[in-house]
Amino acid sequence: MNGRPALKPLTIVIAPDSFKGSLSASAAAAAMADGARDAAIALGQPQAQITLCPMADGGEGTLDAIAAVWGVEPCTMPTVDALGRSRLARYARSANGRVGLIEAAESNGLPLVADTAPQPQRADTFGVGLLAWELLDQNVEEILLCIGGSASTDGGTGLLAALGARFLDAAGEIVAPGGAGLAQIESIDLAGLHPHARAVRWRVAVDVNNPLCGPTGAAAVFGPQKGAAPSDIAELDAGLAHLAAIVLGETGEDMTDRPGAGAAGGMPATLVPLLRAELVPGSTLVADAVGLADKIANANLVLTGEGSFDSQSLGGKVAVAVARLAPAGCPVVVIAGRVSLPAADTAASGVTAAFSIAGGPATLDDLQHHAAERVRDTTAQAVALFLQSH
Amino acid sequence: MNGRPALKPLTIVIAPDSFKGSLSASAAAAAMADGARDAAIALGQPQAQITLCPMADGGEGTLDAIAAVWGVEPCTMPTVDALGRSRLARYARSANGRVGLIEAAESNGLPLVADTAPQPQRADTFGVGLLAWELLDQNVEEILLCIGGSASTDGGTGLLAALGARFLDAAGEIVAPGGAGLAQIESIDLAGLHPHARAVRWRVAVDVNNPLCGPTGAAAVFGPQKGAAPSDIAELDAGLAHLAAIVLGETGEDMTDRPGAGAAGGMPATLVPLLRAELVPGSTLVADAVGLADKIANANLVLTGEGSFDSQSLGGKVAVAVARLAPAGCPVVVIAGRVSLPAADTAASGVTAAFSIAGGPATLDDLQHHAAERVRDTTAQAVALFLQSH
Repeated sequence: MNGRPALKPLTIVIAPDSFKGSLSASAAAAAMADGARDAAIALGQPQAQITLCPMADGGEGTLDAIAAVWGVEPCTMPTVDALGRSRLARYARSANGRVGLIEAAESNGLPLVADTAPQPQRADTFGVGLLAWELLDQNVEEILLCIGGSASTDGGTGLLAALGARFLDAAGEIVAPGGAGLAQIESIDLAGLHPHARAVRWRVAVDVNNPLCGPTGAAAVFGPQKGAAPSDIAELDAGLAHLAAIVLGETGEDMTDRPGAGAAGGMPATLVPLLRAELVPGSTLVADAVGLADKIANANLVLTGEGSFDSQSLGGKVAVAVARLAPAGCPVVVIAGRVSLPAADTAASGVTAAFSIAGGPATLDDLQHHAAERVRDTTAQAVALFLQSH
Repeated sequence: MNGRPALKPLTIVIAPDSFKGSLSASAAAAAMADGARDAAIALGQPQAQITLCPMADGGEGTLDAIAAVWGVEPCTMPTVDALGRSRLARYARSANGRVGLIEAAESNGLPLVADTAPQPQRADTFGVGLLAWELLDQNVEEILLCIGGSASTDGGTGLLAALGARFLDAAGEIVAPGGAGLAQIESIDLAGLHPHARAVRWRVAVDVNNPLCGPTGAAAVFGPQKGAAPSDIAELDAGLAHLAAIVLGETGEDMTDRPGAGAAGGMPATLVPLLRAELVPGSTLVADAVGLADKIANANLVLTGEGSFDSQSLGGKVAVAVARLAPAGCPVVVIAGRVSLPAADTAASGVTAAFSIAGGPATLDDLQHHAAERVRDTTAQAVALFLQSH
């Protein structure tokens, strides 16, 4: 029990992100485990312990990845999409019932409204609030909220409204939903808020550092992909700035310069000051949710992976987050579809080595089509080198 | 001095083949050394000993690779090409003068006669014999002869003729040079052979198992690439069969069924019985020539590589030959442009792990163009994993 390899079988922890476009995190972890087992058997170490911990970065696939590690099936309930049209969406609750998990894009995701003309000023987060209400009703103590991929730019007002908050104009009337109503807000009435809304711990996965407003803000940077024309962007940006001013007046908290407040159409602008939500990197949220720190503590080798291991990976994506949790001296190997980070930068990130699944000249299509077998084989090579060197 | 890593710096031996189309063996070894040093420094082991031993497989580039390790410059002398036209060719002699090295294609290579219409029946190995004569005159004790890439199908008669042998017809006249004269040979007169010709040790690098004659023989399989039409092939094949019968009669040695006798237009058909030449795999010949066994004996990590690590590599090419010489338990890593051998086959070959230099989707041209930097980077990743695991 003291972690010395001589006294117990080697422990290999496998904690990859998904390989976008080809493998879910679970499928990637399974392929890597196959490869690790191949190598362990070939090198006469069949007793090696292999622990699977599929990861995610807070973006698409996070719900499935965490639910898989929790050993629960996501629940499905009726909610609405970003345009208020009814749809079913999923959420998850940890096996002990204490933690709820929402992938916001299950309700307000951009692909869900791709069937109709973009309505960037109308789109809101109300449906995400309905999912949160359900979890509050189920008495969770903590809500994990992954907010990437949204169609909305409403500063999170829709979510708050679904939980019972009222955003009122000068006449005391409820403002229009979506970004369109933000400029009319003069006061916020929290009297009707769900009784647990401010009692639970909210942790919000944010993977951008954009501020709420301005040229690098939510509307300017992410508005175009949501269908916002230049005039929409100007109005949405002004609306978010107005919202921040109102929130500052009501709570004393200034979200204007807060890094990450521009994520997901500015959802943090209300979630942080009104619900006391914490903003965390997506991979940190996932690592905590799946208990990676405990699983990795006694690892002799850590394998992680993702579709592309590149300079963006250094900004707190899964591979680097996993590397940070690995025990001192434990090799951390990244298996990726594409490795475009030089070895020196790899080392500086805490990753020992990164190998592409490409076995030579190949197209992206080739690699995606044969991803599982290539991941398995590349992992087998790396684990063989580890075992033979150990 | 007992090889335990705790008592002395780690030793990394780097013994790659060339990466055909992009890097000579020396350039590949240098790039791998750069990568190994990068990793050693990054992981706080700058004292690691790195030994370079560029390899070759007996084919093109072998002369340069061995001369580089010997620390000698190849010599140049006048000789003739496969069609008897004068040209300069190179050979090498070990620093102590005991071993001579000939890359036959320097004289009778196919590319050297590409400027004229193919003359598959005329082409011979006389020029190779001139190189050998020079080495015999220099009192070498051993001649290493790499015979790949030839334009000739003369059963080695040209080489023997240059050394003083006379191939005579029924009238006692010297037969025509090249494959054309083989069918007329009725006796072989070795009286004029260079006095050292049978005193030195001849080692001939052969990398095919083809027999001398028949459907898988020298003429049928390699004749077409030398410009032989079907009628030429039939005549050359019959000529080689006749030569083998005459040699059998003179020496009692039957080369008909000898695997490898079909190499280089059947050169072994005379070299083996008349000069007592040994046929060895090219990579073994090179490994012996450069003293790889001694250099590798105390290695903690062995790195090798080649352009393509594939099923052909298992037939005794450089990587597998290097792996065979590595000390028990020492990891052997292949860095290659293309790795198309599954991990299980890799392990069975004695290679621990093989990694492609491809960092993701890439064309052959991309990989060749950036070969040195990709080899360096991939090596750094593998060595980092070794060092961190060690």
